[in-house]
Amino acid sequence: MNKNILDTFIRNALHEDIGDGDHSSLACIDKNAQGKAELLIKEDGIIAGINVIKRLYELFDDQVTLDIQILNGKRIKNGDIAFYVKGKKNSILQTERLVLNILQRMSGIATSTRKYADLLSGFNTRVLDTRKTTPNIRFLEKEAVKIGGGENHRMGLYDMIMIKDNHIDFAGSINNAIKRTLKYLNKNGKTNLKIEVEARNLEEVKEILSTGGIHRILLDNFSIEETIKAVKLINNKFETESSGNININTIRSYAECGVDYISVGALTHQINSLDMSLKATE
Amino acid sequence: MNKNILDTFIRNALHEDIGDGDHSSLACIDKNAQGKAELLIKEDGIIAGINVIKRLYELFDDQVTLDIQILNGKRIKNGDIAFYVKGKKNSILQTERLVLNILQRMSGIATSTRKYADLLSGFNTRVLDTRKTTPNIRFLEKEAVKIGGGENHRMGLYDMIMIKDNHIDFAGSINNAIKRTLKYLNKNGKTNLKIEVEARNLEEVKEILSTGGIHRILLDNFSIEETIKAVKLINNKFETESSGNININTIRSYAECGVDYISVGALTHQINSLDMSLKATE
Amino acid sequence: MNKNILDTFIRNALHEDIGDGDHSSLACIDKNAQGKAELLIKEDGIIAGINVIKRLYELFDDQVTLDIQILNGKRIKNGDIAFYVKGKKNSILQTERLVLNILQRMSGIATSTRKYADLLSGFNTRVLDTRKTTPNIRFLEKEAVKIGGGENHRMGLYDMIMIKDNHIDFAGSINNAIKRTLKYLNKNGKTNLKIEVEARNLEEVKEILSTGGIHRILLDNFSIEETIKAVKLINNKFETESSGNININTIRSYAECGVDYISVGALTHQINSLDMSLKATE
Amino acid sequence: MNKNILDTFIRNALHEDIGDGDHSSLACIDKNAQGKAELLIKEDGIIAGINVIKRLYELFDDQVTLDIQILNGKRIKNGDIAFYVKGKKNSILQTERLVLNILQRMSGIATSTRKYADLLSGFNTRVLDTRKTTPNIRFLEKEAVKIGGGENHRMGLYDMIMIKDNHIDFAGSINNAIKRTLKYLNKNGKTNLKIEVEARNLEEVKEILSTGGIHRILLDNFSIEETIKAVKLINNKFETESSGNININTIRSYAECGVDYISVGALTHQINSLDMSLKATE
Amino acid sequence: MNKNILDTFIRNALHEDIGDGDHSSLACIDKNAQGKAELLIKEDGIIAGINVIKRLYELFDDQVTLDIQILNGKRIKNGDIAFYVKGKKNSILQTERLVLNILQRMSGIATSTRKYADLLSGFNTRVLDTRKTTPNIRFLEKEAVKIGGGENHRMGLYDMIMIKDNHIDFAGSINNAIKRTLKYLNKNGKTNLKIEVEARNLEEVKEILSTGGIHRILLDNFSIEETIKAVKLINNKFETESSGNININTIRSYAECGVDYISVGALTHQINSLDMSLKATE
Amino acid sequence: MNKNILDTFIRNALHEDIGDGDHSSLACIDKNAQGKAELLIKEDGIIAGINVIKRLYELFDDQVTLDIQILNGKRIKNGDIAFYVKGKKNSILQTERLVLNILQRMSGIATSTRKYADLLSGFNTRVLDTRKTTPNIRFLEKEAVKIGGGENHRMGLYDMIMIKDNHIDFAGSINNAIKRTLKYLNKNGKTNLKIEVEARNLEEVKEILSTGGIHRILLDNFSIEETIKAVKLINNKFETESSGNININTIRSYAECGVDYISVGALTHQINSLDMSLKATE
Repeated sequence: MNKNILDTFIRNALHEDIGDGDHSSLACIDKNAQGKAELLIKEDGIIAGINVIKRLYELFDDQVTLDIQILNGKRIKNGDIAFYVKGKKNSILQTERLVLNILQRMSGIATSTRKYADLLSGFNTRVLDTRKTTPNIRFLEKEAVKIGGGENHRMGLYDMIMIKDNHIDFAGSINNAIKRTLKYLNKNGKTNLKIEVEARNLEEVKEILSTGGIHRILLDNFSIEETIKAVKLINNKFETESSGNININTIRSYAECGVDYISVGALTHQINSLDMSLKATE
Repeated sequence: MNKNILDTFIRNALHEDIGDGDHSSLACIDKNAQGKAELLIKEDGIIAGINVIKRLYELFDDQVTLDIQILNGKRIKNGDIAFYVKGKKNSILQTERLVLNILQRMSGIATSTRKYADLLSGFNTRVLDTRKTTPNIRFLEKEAVKIGGGENHRMGLYDMIMIKDNHIDFAGSINNAIKRTLKYLNKNGKTNLKIEVEARNLEEVKEILSTGGIHRILLDNFSIEETIKAVKLINNKFETESSGNININTIRSYAECGVDYISVGALTHQINSLDMSLKATE
Repeated sequence: MNKNILDTFIRNALHEDIGDGDHSSLACIDKNAQGKAELLIKEDGIIAGINVIKRLYELFDDQVTLDIQILNGKRIKNGDIAFYVKGKKNSILQTERLVLNILQRMSGIATSTRKYADLLSGFNTRVLDTRKTTPNIRFLEKEAVKIGGGENHRMGLYDMIMIKDNHIDFAGSINNAIKRTLKYLNKNGKTNLKIEVEARNLEEVKEILSTGGIHRILLDNFSIEETIKAVKLINNKFETESSGNININTIRSYAECGVDYISVGALTHQINSLDMSLKATE
Repeated sequence: MNKNILDTFIRNALHEDIGDGDHSSLACIDKNAQGKAELLIKEDGIIAGINVIKRLYELFDDQVTLDIQILNGKRIKNGDIAFYVKGKKNSILQTERLVLNILQRMSGIATSTRKYADLLSGFNTRVLDTRKTTPNIRFLEKEAVKIGGGENHRMGLYDMIMIKDNHIDFAGSINNAIKRTLKYLNKNGKTNLKIEVEARNLEEVKEILSTGGIHRILLDNFSIEETIKAVKLINNKFETESSGNININTIRSYAECGVDYISVGALTHQINSLDMSLKATE
Repeated sequence: MNKNILDTFIRNALHEDIGDGDHSSLACIDKNAQGKAELLIKEDGIIAGINVIKRLYELFDDQVTLDIQILNGKRIKNGDIAFYVKGKKNSILQTERLVLNILQRMSGIATSTRKYADLLSGFNTRVLDTRKTTPNIRFLEKEAVKIGGGENHRMGLYDMIMIKDNHIDFAGSINNAIKRTLKYLNKNGKTNLKIEVEARNLEEVKEILSTGGIHRILLDNFSIEETIKAVKLINNKFETESSGNININTIRSYAECGVDYISVGALTHQINSLDMSLKATE
Repeated sequence: MNKNILDTFIRNALHEDIGDGDHSSLACIDKNAQGKAELLIKEDGIIAGINVIKRLYELFDDQVTLDIQILNGKRIKNGDIAFYVKGKKNSILQTERLVLNILQRMSGIATSTRKYADLLSGFNTRVLDTRKTTPNIRFLEKEAVKIGGGENHRMGLYDMIMIKDNHIDFAGSINNAIKRTLKYLNKNGKTNLKIEVEARNLEEVKEILSTGGIHRILLDNFSIEETIKAVKLINNKFETESSGNININTIRSYAECGVDYISVGALTHQINSLDMSLKATE
């Protein structure tokens, strides 16, 4: 994770919540009063965001000390203590909501990802995220997916070529679209970008195979039977990826077809914050 | 909504997704090719974010024209068209994912809020959001809550006083906490801030009542029976707010107790993006 | 599908809905006004009934033209257009409800069947329907099962022998029931009918095996363990079929036992119409 | 219910299932053997179709005697006996599946309808079915709705005027559509037909009110708040009907708005057969 | 609660779990080692059984000290501490499972009861338990119901008369059954027992009314409409009680009919232990 | 099952329900009147408790005769008759509730266990219960688990050594805890007790392996991936057991890891009584 991006994110978010001051705490609590708190886990899952929280406390008040009990990516259970924090009461209170908002959302994503990843154990298939992320928070959400045992698909439109139906329709054919792309990448010195082409049916898979020059084929909205046939046709010549409303009930069936990747929009499209609280202990 | 904040948000989010270029589209599609698309609604709900999208297209390419069919806050049904968009194919494609990420998340929040608000029809009780929002996106998420028929609680720690258990425990008593707060507000020229005090049981309600000088009492984790008693005790002397895991099944029972507000963390804590797609039509 | 039966079905159903006239349309719309509409899919699934709809338009008004986009049995997604229809506005309006009632019910059955069929991918087991169908619509419902990837069990009492507990109890023993049946089929020139015998436990399986002369054994309400034992005992001497409240959660476990068929009453016993609409476009 | 239609329905359905004979029973069971059976209810609900079954036995074999224990429309519980039947074993067996298919589907509809109707107890609002029925079985499905405590909307396109968006758009305005309709009804001697007009928003409600000459206004896809306003505007001048994805969770809120009718497509659009069996007792 | 019964229950249960010794603890932990633990709540609900636990520790080792934080019947939240316990490590460990088994089951029942009771707030109707309890634990389960806000129906067959269908059928009529009962009670000096009579329909309600001499009428499996009529007929002459698969979704509708009691078998028939743990803290 | 314990359980439970008499039956029904009843199954599952019921009738009135149709452990379906009972009406009525309370609870547990056991078919893994049972009813609940196809874990603290985190922490290390235990067992003549040691992570598994002298390792709250690694490390040197919120959705994935046992607290921790009734037939 890029440190500048993270620091900017944290500073903006602190400002968003605190503005010109946490007047409730400033009014009621002596500015030098010391306190302790513990992060109590209230729902089973996978923890993520611990490193972000660590940086957050450093930036906000470097006198706050953090005693981390559970590392990023570990399984947590209702009742666990993830960390103890000690320092000025005002510092702990003023960062409390942001700490929770970050940890709960990232852990929610990691927990959901791990459910998918566990269902793939024993297969060579890996679960991917998508670009369906919260605007400007993609770097954190994709980090949470990795912590949960998933892999990241491309970060944006810029770091991989994905030839979709729109591109193919405009170029006139799959063959033309791939050729235009190869020429473009050559001309612009971007030959390091991987190329993935979307297929909507077995005929398009065959057309892609007859063209070549690419790295991965996306099997979009294929049934199980069509996926089995496609994997056989492609025969490891290119990587394969399944997508299209694949969920917790169907992911194993797709993995059994032998695809390399399955991308799941729901990982970041539905966000269920994991239940936690920061409990003052003295 | 503050225009500068919105514009910065949009510019950053465009950069996040596009980086140094949407190379797939640049490669396959002529840079001046014109196209059309329509935003197809695929799940019943309430639409939100239309104004953000409007600004997004203006900022990205002011030659793109938008023909809006459904205004913010309107009920939408699976199969509806929310808007038509016309302009450079490349402009439409490069903004597609961000347009959807904004609209789907804001509409998801508005839809969820409307369910709560509808359950309160016939009562004088209003549903409030909380500070449990995505870091740095709070302004958009709170906007979506308003569009869905909810009201916004305080924006951050800075625009309202909320005296919670921590403050009370430190100050030694409810009475002390309120007195310290009034003194602080006076001294710092912040007497325009409203004061809300959290009560954990009926005894604390009585203690708050005997002190006075505040605007609202938060009844945190009160049962229905305790809420009825508290509302009677408070007797409209102050505003009342219920909170604590109140959900779609219990909100009406709390409203029947006569509280003024019910705050619901889940409005922004669980985000279920509403299903939509941007379909190219030519 | 028998063409006469289909035509009679369509004519009766048109009469059922239209009677002596669609007076609303006749009153408001010029009788020669031309229009267009599209069939919009609003829920993911498998489409079925397209051929029935084609015949319906032919019978009702052969000037209506149909531009089919998606063929029977194909996977459909919320937002897809299954066909475009063009012709007299009155013709489109008067057949609208029947078109939807047929397509939505058949597609609902095909979608449900496909879920079961997909769960059997990789096994040699096939999913069968039953006689638990809507009276007089069995031919369409069984057609939808086939489109969804299932196979049809017998059409009625007449095209296969199924010796059930009642028959066995009356005949006095499995042995007697089979003997009576073979004699009857011989005498009545019905030796082409296949014979299936129901077993309620492993003892009955053994008794059937010691008699022979049949084609398939139905293992009714067997547990997984009993099914494994039964399949081993039968040892491919006869076909095997499992039945008895087998559902989406348990069908794979039964298939893993190695039975040839699994019959599922719910395919036609619970009908969940798939969401679609016919949208006028001009 | 029309007796000829019912008899034809029954005869066709018997032929559909039995064809040239129930060869399994003919082979195994002496043709004069007498037997008894009882209809065992296996799921709580409302029974419907008893009269159809009575006629079915009369038509098939008038020597079969039926001892009915529970009348149409009564609440039934898992474990109840709905009737005893006595007669030729062959007659009981050959009609078994059809008896169950009719009773289970009609009772499923009646049970579902009763859930809606019960939620309306205490209100003057009544629940209506729609034309979303199984083709050619509408008369039975609408009968089941009545038995379950619902009311029937129009039987088909012929027995009521329903001016929908299509008619209004074609006629140019609500005003024109109503005028054309009144003229048409006059001219064709159909002035006994009731007129209902669909409104999509409060503006259309006002336009309908300013025109008049009709019987009922359909408030399609109105929110709770809009419905409250519409009912106030209409002020009992015409009947009111709410429609549009109203379900078991929202029907009471709509009834509280004071509408006269709520139509629910799901009553006949989703069919969940109620669990029953015909058990031989000797 | 009878102290002897409670003590016997606790002693037997301790023996059931410990038998001739907790050999794991005896082996590993010094017999005089002192320890502390806290009871951590891991699921929201109502706590019950605290007094039983208090007695359990007294009986097992009166050197164990208990610091109770939350009293019986209080609302608890995931993360709360219900009590702290201090004493010999061995004593804490050997009673741990029994403490949890008692608290979790009783709190599960109290939590479930409170859901029903809360739904009745604002009505004069009270929720009752039944005799559908775990054999020999009825006194604890009924205690938990009271703690959750329900009332106890009769404790057994001995402390109230309940004239059910069997009794009526044997006696020949409702009238006879009531007369026999009054005579029996007189003769046996049991006139202090209350009499409740079960009615299966409105006719039976009328027959009971014409007889009199009783205290309560049970309306078994009445629909909402029949209940409204029955309550009107009875007109406060006797108490009224509804029963028959009334659940969380329907209980309010029955209460709105004005019955005095609603009995709910599920309170003790389905037991969902509330999640808790006893955490060693040093 | 120990006969004395069973008889005491039954006698106490009869006394709990009947006390000084079933006055309703005594009043209404002649003491010598004879009757019949049948136990009607109203929900699919596995039956358990038949032997307990048999003994119950023997103890209460040895003139009651029982005609058992379905044996313990058999699959039952809604509509089945489990047994017929004949004898004094008063005897049948006075034991009715207890008979049902025992059968419904035990069958509920057996049914739930069978669901887990069926998911393990084809694996060598067996499902175990825990000590999370109803106090004083453990012997019956564990019996029900066996009938449902599960195996019993230890009966109490006395019949097996289970070295948990508390023991390890006190002893200072796994190595010390095991050594103390072996010494204790030797000294106390308890070397027949099996030893299981809990591991919280792979490091602890390695430490246990380096010590030895035990029988089984408990992998508590291990992820699928960690379990695969642990099973490989242990390499059949000791038995393995997985535990920690393993449920119906995840049990197969754990079994695929190759563990010998999976313990599931929910088998007895959540009790869903299976629906049955005792129906008087004359």
